[in-house]
Amino acid sequence: MTHDSALYPTERLARVADAVRAVGLDLLLLTPGPDLRYVTGYDAKQLERLTCLAVPADKAPFLLVPQLELKAAQASPAGALDLETVTWGETAHPFGMIKAKVGDPRSIGLSDRMWALHVLQFADIFPTASQRLASTVLSPLRIRKSAAEVGALLEAGEAIDRVHANVPGWLRPGLTERQVGARIAEAILAEGHVQVDFVIVGSGPNAASPHHEVSDRVIEHGDVVVVDIGGTMPSGYCSDCTRTYAVGHAPEEFLAYYEVLRLAQDAATLSVRPGVTAESVDRTAREIIAGAGYGEWFIHRTGHGIGLESHEDPYIVEGNVVPLEPGMAFSIEPGIYPGPHGARIEDIVVCADPATDPITGDPTTGGAGVQRLNNAPRDLVIV
Amino acid sequence: MTHDSALYPTERLARVADAVRAVGLDLLLLTPGPDLRYVTGYDAKQLERLTCLAVPADKAPFLLVPQLELKAAQASPAGALDLETVTWGETAHPFGMIKAKVGDPRSIGLSDRMWALHVLQFADIFPTASQRLASTVLSPLRIRKSAAEVGALLEAGEAIDRVHANVPGWLRPGLTERQVGARIAEAILAEGHVQVDFVIVGSGPNAASPHHEVSDRVIEHGDVVVVDIGGTMPSGYCSDCTRTYAVGHAPEEFLAYYEVLRLAQDAATLSVRPGVTAESVDRTAREIIAGAGYGEWFIHRTGHGIGLESHEDPYIVEGNVVPLEPGMAFSIEPGIYPGPHGARIEDIVVCADPATDPITGDPTTGGAGVQRLNNAPRDLVIV
Repeated sequence: MTHDSALYPTERLARVADAVRAVGLDLLLLTPGPDLRYVTGYDAKQLERLTCLAVPADKAPFLLVPQLELKAAQASPAGALDLETVTWGETAHPFGMIKAKVGDPRSIGLSDRMWALHVLQFADIFPTASQRLASTVLSPLRIRKSAAEVGALLEAGEAIDRVHANVPGWLRPGLTERQVGARIAEAILAEGHVQVDFVIVGSGPNAASPHHEVSDRVIEHGDVVVVDIGGTMPSGYCSDCTRTYAVGHAPEEFLAYYEVLRLAQDAATLSVRPGVTAESVDRTAREIIAGAGYGEWFIHRTGHGIGLESHEDPYIVEGNVVPLEPGMAFSIEPGIYPGPHGARIEDIVVCADPATDPITGDPTTGGAGVQRLNNAPRDLVIV
Repeated sequence: MTHDSALYPTERLARVADAVRAVGLDLLLLTPGPDLRYVTGYDAKQLERLTCLAVPADKAPFLLVPQLELKAAQASPAGALDLETVTWGETAHPFGMIKAKVGDPRSIGLSDRMWALHVLQFADIFPTASQRLASTVLSPLRIRKSAAEVGALLEAGEAIDRVHANVPGWLRPGLTERQVGARIAEAILAEGHVQVDFVIVGSGPNAASPHHEVSDRVIEHGDVVVVDIGGTMPSGYCSDCTRTYAVGHAPEEFLAYYEVLRLAQDAATLSVRPGVTAESVDRTAREIIAGAGYGEWFIHRTGHGIGLESHEDPYIVEGNVVPLEPGMAFSIEPGIYPGPHGARIEDIVVCADPATDPITGDPTTGGAGVQRLNNAPRDLVIV
């Protein structure tokens, strides 16, 4: 429950109401999750009991909360907003209470992470309304980070960099991935995150499985280990950083493609600037990897946006023609997984206006079009 | 990724397919979450990329996964099932791939926690199909825990009891709720959970806010502190236990209602047996509390089911006339919150067949109709 008025400005709610009208929605409905937190600062837990911010196009917004959540809601940043709070008791029908206040909308926007449990009840109570995703309204706002948000992402990046700085000391032959993962999880919290979002320690053949988590495999001399870790900071903003390590020594053929990967990751990063499309950043990484003969082993997109969610817009993938703009934050994380090992290098970066400092907003005399938020060494670390 | 064939028996998938036909659904679609894990043992992360188990009424089930998740899916218990696995690459259209395999269902069941992001895409791809919740099919199965599941819940209960055993040592005047909460979170992991689900440390006036989490309030001599904590075990099964502590001494008026609460919690627990309705257990607790004059301060239901989710069927609430059956597991957690303090006592219990041991399944010579899975002291602990 961070009360950071720069991160969660009180005027955002009015801006969202304007956006609801601008896209032609009659009603926006946000249950707990990143959308609700973005709009109100309220970091509520998603539960079966309905908590919902309603933003009608033509009426004042209101927040519906279960009676037992009232004090928690009031203590959150949402308590400082000009927002009616409506409570419901355990045997009331909260969907009917919303309908009674908003009437019969023809179109409703639902937070992208709303559970089907609630989506279908809204479909029942508003049977003639078309359902759309709240991202129609919110993605264009959330995708461009404010200076305060970039600052929060930088703080997250520095925290996860401090964890990576300690990883070489833990990658010892004889420990299992799970043991190393437990130390990393502790460090993610100790370095300032409030939540561990994921810990991937893929050693030996598991390095070739991009979304492997941890296993009881014992790390051996000669292993390559992909370590992809991230968490959520008290601000709500997320970290995500991958490094690949070699234990003792690395196989020749691995060293060959690691250098290609290193180059591709660097080139893709440096290709970022306002006006470049998301897919062209993907293509920059992919062409280098394919040109070196490893194309078939780069089996995922180059990156994903990051903010209040680990994965959000913009996705750095073929087909996404959105032009990058200052404030867009995303990962650059090409990987090569030929087996019996694999590698990935990942940084979070922010597209920047070369004429403006991305955090202070001060004019600069010609900066880069990109700022890296992770700065752990990208050269292969042999532990 | 627990490979426990007793917890996640391979024959469950066939039983679910039978249930899909029995309720008249054409297709069941499960994205990552407790429903998918229950059916396949696959503990996948919910992400924007579609991972989906499809169980058609009249065809073989299949699991659709992003290409980069394939190895993780195969390494999970789902890899041992008789189940086709279909992968999709980053630029494919996974919803179209499902449609191509299943045709045009008239009715589809969606996992209750499926994100709106996916619900609305299924609505687009199957525009004439009616959408229902997967719980129509799965709740009747999930609500009755097998002996192995009761064993997993007992293991979770013992782990959280060990955490509560250490709480009195941490509730020291001068520490903040957040500091105590951090120690509890570490202990939840150290005692065998893989995830901290929630940590409520409500001290002083915060004890009167049932879903308060932690704050920077400094704990003082004379405070009452509600500590409600839970996590997820490697098995996937959850713990949840609340105790209320007094620091140094407790106010007279608090002691008066704590005794009422203690009695109500005990009476509600002992009222559990096969055939009794869920609401009647709620009523037992509520009548005792109301009879003592505290009814208006008991502002939530008496309990919720627990298993692979912290909150699931059956809910112990007015209006829920479901008769309890052996194997149903749920919390009994009445609370009284008059302010400037409050109290709650919570145990997880399992409805039991008095003639059968709930874990071994062996016949007994007349046991109780209920088994408590938490056994930390319920008498007020003054620290």
